[in-house]
This record gives sequence, structure tokens and C-alpha cells, in this order.
Amino acid sequence: MRLVVIGGQAAGLSAAARARRIDRGLEILVLEKSQRISFGACGLPYYLEHRVRSLEELSVYTPEYFRRERDIAVRTGVEVAAVAHARRQVALADGEATHYDRLVVATGARVDRAGIEGVERPHVFTLHTPEDATRLRTQLDERPRRAAVIGAGYIGLETAEALRNGGVSAVTIFEATPYVLGRQDAELTRRLSEHLERHGIELRTSSRVTTIEPDRVADVPCELVVLATGVRPNVELAAEAGVELGRTGAIRASDRMETNLNGVYAAGDCAETQHLVSGRAVYLPLGTTANKMGRVAGANAAGARERFEGVTGTTILRVCGLGVAMTGLSEAQARKEGFDPVEVWIDAQDRPRYFGARPTAIHLVADRRSGRLLGGTVMGEEGVAGRINVIATALASQIRLEQFQQLDLAYSPPFAPVWDPLLVAAQQLAKLLN
Amino acid sequence: MRLVVIGGQAAGLSAAARARRIDRGLEILVLEKSQRISFGACGLPYYLEHRVRSLEELSVYTPEYFRRERDIAVRTGVEVAAVAHARRQVALADGEATHYDRLVVATGARVDRAGIEGVERPHVFTLHTPEDATRLRTQLDERPRRAAVIGAGYIGLETAEALRNGGVSAVTIFEATPYVLGRQDAELTRRLSEHLERHGIELRTSSRVTTIEPDRVADVPCELVVLATGVRPNVELAAEAGVELGRTGAIRASDRMETNLNGVYAAGDCAETQHLVSGRAVYLPLGTTANKMGRVAGANAAGARERFEGVTGTTILRVCGLGVAMTGLSEAQARKEGFDPVEVWIDAQDRPRYFGARPTAIHLVADRRSGRLLGGTVMGEEGVAGRINVIATALASQIRLEQFQQLDLAYSPPFAPVWDPLLVAAQQLAKLLN
Repeated sequence: MRLVVIGGQAAGLSAAARARRIDRGLEILVLEKSQRISFGACGLPYYLEHRVRSLEELSVYTPEYFRRERDIAVRTGVEVAAVAHARRQVALADGEATHYDRLVVATGARVDRAGIEGVERPHVFTLHTPEDATRLRTQLDERPRRAAVIGAGYIGLETAEALRNGGVSAVTIFEATPYVLGRQDAELTRRLSEHLERHGIELRTSSRVTTIEPDRVADVPCELVVLATGVRPNVELAAEAGVELGRTGAIRASDRMETNLNGVYAAGDCAETQHLVSGRAVYLPLGTTANKMGRVAGANAAGARERFEGVTGTTILRVCGLGVAMTGLSEAQARKEGFDPVEVWIDAQDRPRYFGARPTAIHLVADRRSGRLLGGTVMGEEGVAGRINVIATALASQIRLEQFQQLDLAYSPPFAPVWDPLLVAAQQLAKLLN
Repeated sequence: MRLVVIGGQAAGLSAAARARRIDRGLEILVLEKSQRISFGACGLPYYLEHRVRSLEELSVYTPEYFRRERDIAVRTGVEVAAVAHARRQVALADGEATHYDRLVVATGARVDRAGIEGVERPHVFTLHTPEDATRLRTQLDERPRRAAVIGAGYIGLETAEALRNGGVSAVTIFEATPYVLGRQDAELTRRLSEHLERHGIELRTSSRVTTIEPDRVADVPCELVVLATGVRPNVELAAEAGVELGRTGAIRASDRMETNLNGVYAAGDCAETQHLVSGRAVYLPLGTTANKMGRVAGANAAGARERFEGVTGTTILRVCGLGVAMTGLSEAQARKEGFDPVEVWIDAQDRPRYFGARPTAIHLVADRRSGRLLGGTVMGEEGVAGRINVIATALASQIRLEQFQQLDLAYSPPFAPVWDPLLVAAQQLAKLLN
């Protein structure tokens, strides 16, 4: 039995490693287009600001490691030209062909240039690959004074901060929608916008950029532009081979991560997944999800029977000292999904005053009809990951607000106030349910 | 309708405040034995080390606040002598009697002196009340050099650290059982013991103290002894009135917090509660639980219908820079409760190296038969509260390890590694389930 994995990043390598654990005798080949495998692209903004010194720090494993420790063959710099599923064959760009019994498609995503004109200009950068980062960091050495970032997703926000930290004195973010972070939440947008402004970053929402001029974006003069308009899944190879796509445009796979083609699995940024709150297929390309999908794809490709249940859409980022995290649905998203949502924002202190209380904001959304918790947001300097993870765990278990209010959360003065802000928010929200 | 609440601390005041919200017309009287209400005793160790400057900082509310803002009468310095339920009457120690329609018993707990001889000696202290703390802090001004702490529960551990921070050069903790923190976990005990030793605190387990000599405990010379042998519920008043006690010795109440006497509720450190994992009544006197029980008791006493589901037994403390938290059952406790437990301890890093990774240890227990998660422990410098709360939330929802492994936990380099240590531990444990 031979397993071929197309893609040697998070999903592909998780699949290969997991398949090896399930079946010691399986022949496993990973084909990676670029020169690096297991590259942690989430670290790129920190490479820009020199917190990450060299790109090598962001590669967790080498092909040699996989060969030696896992008996997995990894070939880098190899592009796949086509998949002929009838013959169970992968054709490489150099003309070579290789056989598979099982195939995992983990072809990732690429920057979505959003139809903007002028993206090919030399002062326009993206931040998706190691090469992008090298190019942009070199440019920052030229000490540009003004920069524009297009897109207020997490890459756009993290990059805006990295530019400021890298010495750029004026940074403007252009966002086509009225909202940050693709969240449809006016209050989150307002709070984050104010925070950015305090740190010298201007956020312009509802500002669709159509053209990048050599010296400016819209009326904002700038020497540097970073395109952070999101990514789109690399599905062409799979689609041409007959793999079905979902309504999101990414590859549709079962909860076993199998596509419509028998023995062909998909995982990572090229595939869609289930949203555990809405019950719908969504496209949420994130490294954590890619790893989990990859594990399940690899397990099943190797003959096990495992399921990937889906995600609650947890995202976290730190921007100018503030942690911002969200999971589940915003009020607007919940309404769109047919719920009857109520929401509350509270501002609280994250621990007693004598332990250096810091402000933290909690947002919760629940369904009026069922009392079910639907989503939440956490903003603060500390404890943000922990609190959003509690909400994510509650969402995965589909618990009701009534139960959430009584969670036995940890209390001791160095860590939290006696009523954790999560519970206070839940109590406030419960009043609106009655 | 008249509601009388015996006890003006966490449970009693939560009950009174919640009753007022439910019924604006209710007459509410709170009787408190001491001079202070809503006293945050959890802050006492930090008062010893002068982080909390004055005891006033630990009182959240005054009687005047309740009178003015909530229309709740609070009398301090009033001891209740007896409850005559047939006449619906509370008799005060000064001979006065007062009527009730509904009664909430929130009489709290007191230090358990554990039958130790010599506890009345002048160099023996407890740390349960504000007066205790004043006495002990004054004594610390005398610069004692050597101290013994009896009991390795969280009060004992926090006090040991406070003594070290307060200038005591040698602190020895005597613990009667083989374990710290009442947890029956040898690995936790070993790890914590090593940590304490590195900070100049000696932990002696399986060392039952029977006598405190004027100048030593066992063979350890000391000028100061702190008794941290735990607390026992103040149930005498209720028991004499005919209120039933549970097998733990604390007041037994329904999930509506009602005792066997119609219209008499119990909440806080005098009452037992349900453990959501074992399904059994337990006595776990903690401020957070007291507040939640109090809320439910108050709501029901005022005519609403609410339930308190119970606790997962979450505890957290910081000792000498290390956060230590636990929830649910240890392996030994799970076995005793009839489960077939498997467990795993892992040592991981709490974020990528370039964001200053710190070690964190995760312990998980699951039931082999059902695959259900049963408990966990988290130790580390940061992120401890957040991670234990995720486990507590998972336990409250009774999720299986399989589901826990796929939780959509937040990832971004400033906050966590791409595989959160919780998920790594769950993956390791899952291997033992198969």
C-alpha cells in the first residue's frame, strides 16, 4: 500500500505522520512544491519585527527528520501537474509519474489578490510565504515612512503592528467591509479601531481598494503596500482530477476527510470543514484546523476510522499589546444562520486590584429560543486565550447559557476575580433571555 | 414575606442580593456574627506579605451599601442562638427573636484543629478570619526565623510562601496524608514538593502532627506555627433546628439548595454540593461555589425556580511563582468512584520559543470504558487558569476524550503552540484508551 500526500506543510505532514502511526508497513511519500516543509507561517509577522531571527526558526521539521524518524519519504521542490485518479497516478511537472493507493490532497491556499490593480508593482508585498517575508523585511531596511495595509483580517492587523514596530511611522489599514476580522461585529470593530488609533494605526473600514498607485493608495501617500486580502484555496489540481468542491469554493470532504473520490482525502487550507455551531460547511484556513484535519485524513487513509467533527471558528491575535479572540458566531452571523440571538458586552477587571487588575471585555451571544450559547469575543491584555478557549469548549459541547453561568472556573486572587468575567457576562446575558 | 439570611459573607450576601432581584417587595434581613461582611478571606495570605495593605481592601461591600443600593438590612455583630422552625423564628444570642418566612443558612466554616494538642499556645496561629491575619502579621513583625505549617492544602501552601516572603528563613510543612492539596496524586505531590524545596520550603508528607511543643513541632524547632488543617462546616445551629446533614457532615440540600425543612435553604461553606463527575455529594468549601450556591438559594427563597447543578472541584493556587490547578478526579479518586481510569502527565512548552516558551505540565484522567474525561491538573507559570478552566468546562459537559482532542483552541504565537499542551496530553491519553 502506498500513500501519497500532496503538500508538506501542517495538514500534509500531520496526515503522513498519523498514517505512519496507524500502519507501520505503509509506504508514504510527501510531495512539497517549495523548498521548506512544516513551515510555521503564523510566525512571519514576528520575523518582520526581528523577534524571529531567521526563517529556519519557523520550520519545525526537516525532510531528513521525517525520513529518519518516521520512515516517510519527503521530496521538496516537486510540483504536481495532474492527478489521474482512474490510474491512481500523480503526474509531476517534470514528467515523472508516481502511483498511489491512497492520496491526501493538502495543497494549501494562496493570497487572494482580490482583483486589485497594481498588485504587481515593486512596492506591493504579501506575507504568505517565507520568500514574501524575506522580500518585505529587506524592504523595511530601506526605512519606508508610510505604509498601507489592505485587509483588516488577522494577517493585516498583525502586519500593521509589525510595520509600526519595524519603524514605519504611519500605517493605514484599508478594509473593504464595514468590519474587522471578518466578524460582522460593529462593537468589536469600534473597540479595535480605537485601540489601533492609540498606537498610530489608522483603520478605514468600508474602504474597498481597487487600484494601487505607485505612490499612494486612495488619498494616502505610501512607499509600501502590504496586501492582506485573505487567501483562497488551491483546488485546481483536485478539481481537474474530479474532486468535488463545496459551496465555499474549497474542497468538500466527509467528516472522515474523504472527498467524493474513493481513497482521495483532503485536509488543511484547501478544504472546507463543518462549523459546530451553525452546522454548515465553512472555509476557515488556520494551522490548528489544518493539523487536526490532517491527522484524521492520515488515520483514515491508513485504514483507521476516525472523524473530524469540525470547528467553532476560534481565532486569536495580539495587536499592539491587546489580545483579541473570538469563537462561534457573532450576533449578525447567528441571525443569518436562523437563530434568534441576544448579545451582551461587558467590561470587567481580570483579577483583584491588589494583583494588578487589568481591564478585559467579554462578549457573549446566545439563542433566545433554545438558551444555547452561540459565540463570544474576549479582548484584554492577559487571560484572553484561556477565556476564549472556555467559550470554544462550551460551544463544542453545545451547552446552554444556564449551564455556562455555573461553570466551576478557577478562582484565586493571582488569577481571577471571584466571579470570573465570563460568568458575569453570562449572568448579564441570561437576564436578556427571560 | 420576610427572608432572613444567617451569614453575611459570600453565600449569604449572594443569596440576599439575588432574592432582591427576584422580588422587589421582599423584606430581607442578613445577620452576620462578625463585624465585617463580604470579606474576601482568599486574600489573607496576600495581606500577610503586605501586597494587600489593609483588611478594608478585602471587604467588597459595606452594610450601608446593601441598605442603600439593595434595600437589604444587614446587622453585624449579631449571633444567632437558635432556629425554631415550627414558629419560623430565629432567636438571637442577646435574647431578641425575629420572624422569617424563608431562611437561608449560610453559617460558613471554621478551622478544624484536627485534635492537635498545644493549639492554644501563643505561637500557634490560624488564617481564617481577619483577626487571625492581624494577629499573624503582627507576629511576623517580630521576625521569627523558623516556622511550621500544619497542613498542605491550599491555605497551608499559600501561607508557607507568605511566611517566606515575610522574611521567615525556614518553613516546614507537615501533612498528615501522603499527598498535597487533598488530591491523592503522587505525581502532583512529587512535583510540588520539588518546587517548594527549590524555594526553601520543606514538605513532609505522611507526617501527622499530634502535639505542638512550645519551641518545636516534631523535631523541627520553630518560633511560629500556622495551623492549616482545613475547615469544618458550621452546622450545629442548623442541625439543632432539625436540618439534615449529609454523609460529608455538611448540610444536605437539594439542587434548589433547599434543606429537608420546607423554606429553609443552605448555601456556602456550611453545605455540601454535588460533584458533576462522580455524581456524589461532596464538601468543597470555596468562595466561588459559595457565591453560586447562594445565588440559587436566594432565587428559590424569593420564589423563583433555579437549580445549582454542582461543581467539578476546580482549585487553583499560586505558590512561589508556580500556578497549580486541578479539577475533576485524580486517578486514585476515579478508581474509588468506580471508574476504570487511565492517566497521563506531559511536559510541554506553553508557546513557541521565540515568544519565550515556559514549561507547563498537563495531567489528564479518562475512563477506559466510556472514554469520558474525568479530571486534570495543570502546572506552570502562565496560562494555568485558562487551561484548567477548559478542562472544567469539558467535565461539566461530560465530553469524551475523543471530542476533547479536537477542541478548537486558540492558536497564535504570542499565546500558545500550534498544538496546545491540552490537546497533546489528550492525544497521548487516547493512545492508552485503545
